[in-house]
Amino acid sequence: MGVRQGLALAMAGMALGLCGGAAAAGPAETAPYVRIAELEIDPAQLGAYKDILATEQAASVRTEPGVVMLHSVAIAEHPNQIRLLEVYASRATYEAHVKSPHFLRYKAATASMVVSLKLIETVPILLCAKTGDCR
Amino acid sequence: MGVRQGLALAMAGMALGLCGGAAAAGPAETAPYVRIAELEIDPAQLGAYKDILATEQAASVRTEPGVVMLHSVAIAEHPNQIRLLEVYASRATYEAHVKSPHFLRYKAATASMVVSLKLIETVPILLCAKTGDCR
Repeated sequence: MGVRQGLALAMAGMALGLCGGAAAAGPAETAPYVRIAELEIDPAQLGAYKDILATEQAASVRTEPGVVMLHSVAIAEHPNQIRLLEVYASRATYEAHVKSPHFLRYKAATASMVVSLKLIETVPILLCAKTGDCR
Repeated sequence: MGVRQGLALAMAGMALGLCGGAAAAGPAETAPYVRIAELEIDPAQLGAYKDILATEQAASVRTEPGVVMLHSVAIAEHPNQIRLLEVYASRATYEAHVKSPHFLRYKAATASMVVSLKLIETVPILLCAKTGDCR
């Protein structure tokens, strides 16, 4: 499914929104865990990398209850620079995620493709997807 | 509503997913327009800035059909560094967004708070939120 189709579906369906301020984080084990990943990919393997990444994202979101969102983009001016926004329900669900078979497959398959990886811990301010009830 | 509540709602409701590969972008006027914004905020005004930002995000997603997602986070180690992932249905809907009353209010109210702003054009790879049907 292409992004256009995905967006069209989302905009047609618009059934779920995800909005919340981050002012009062809960205990570490239940607070959402939100991270940015910055990757540089070997340009010669970029197409293969993106396919493997997308497969891993889809499997994670589909099969893991604690994987709330995984969004990946390429920087337009530097297409081999990839950014991810990763939202897990908690630190514990993230730790389970990195032990999942699909994540381990992704790591093994892309080990030679990833030139650099920077993981940035964040505190969410507002995570807001289309809905009629975003507040 | 706090992030924890938002996430709980999202994970309980899980009715909408947004997944799509970006391989085949459509005509410019209908292709999704996805951007990262990197901001540095005056630390003395950070709390006020985040409140105004969250209000603007919520109003945009709630009232503008073409604003698909607006996610904002603060870098944990540098809390006055803010990152946004912005997803619009098209370039045209983005251009309408920046003329909206709530966006213009946000720009005016935060003009003295924003130390720097970098806008980064991107090409989406996969935008994937929780659903039972992510592919």
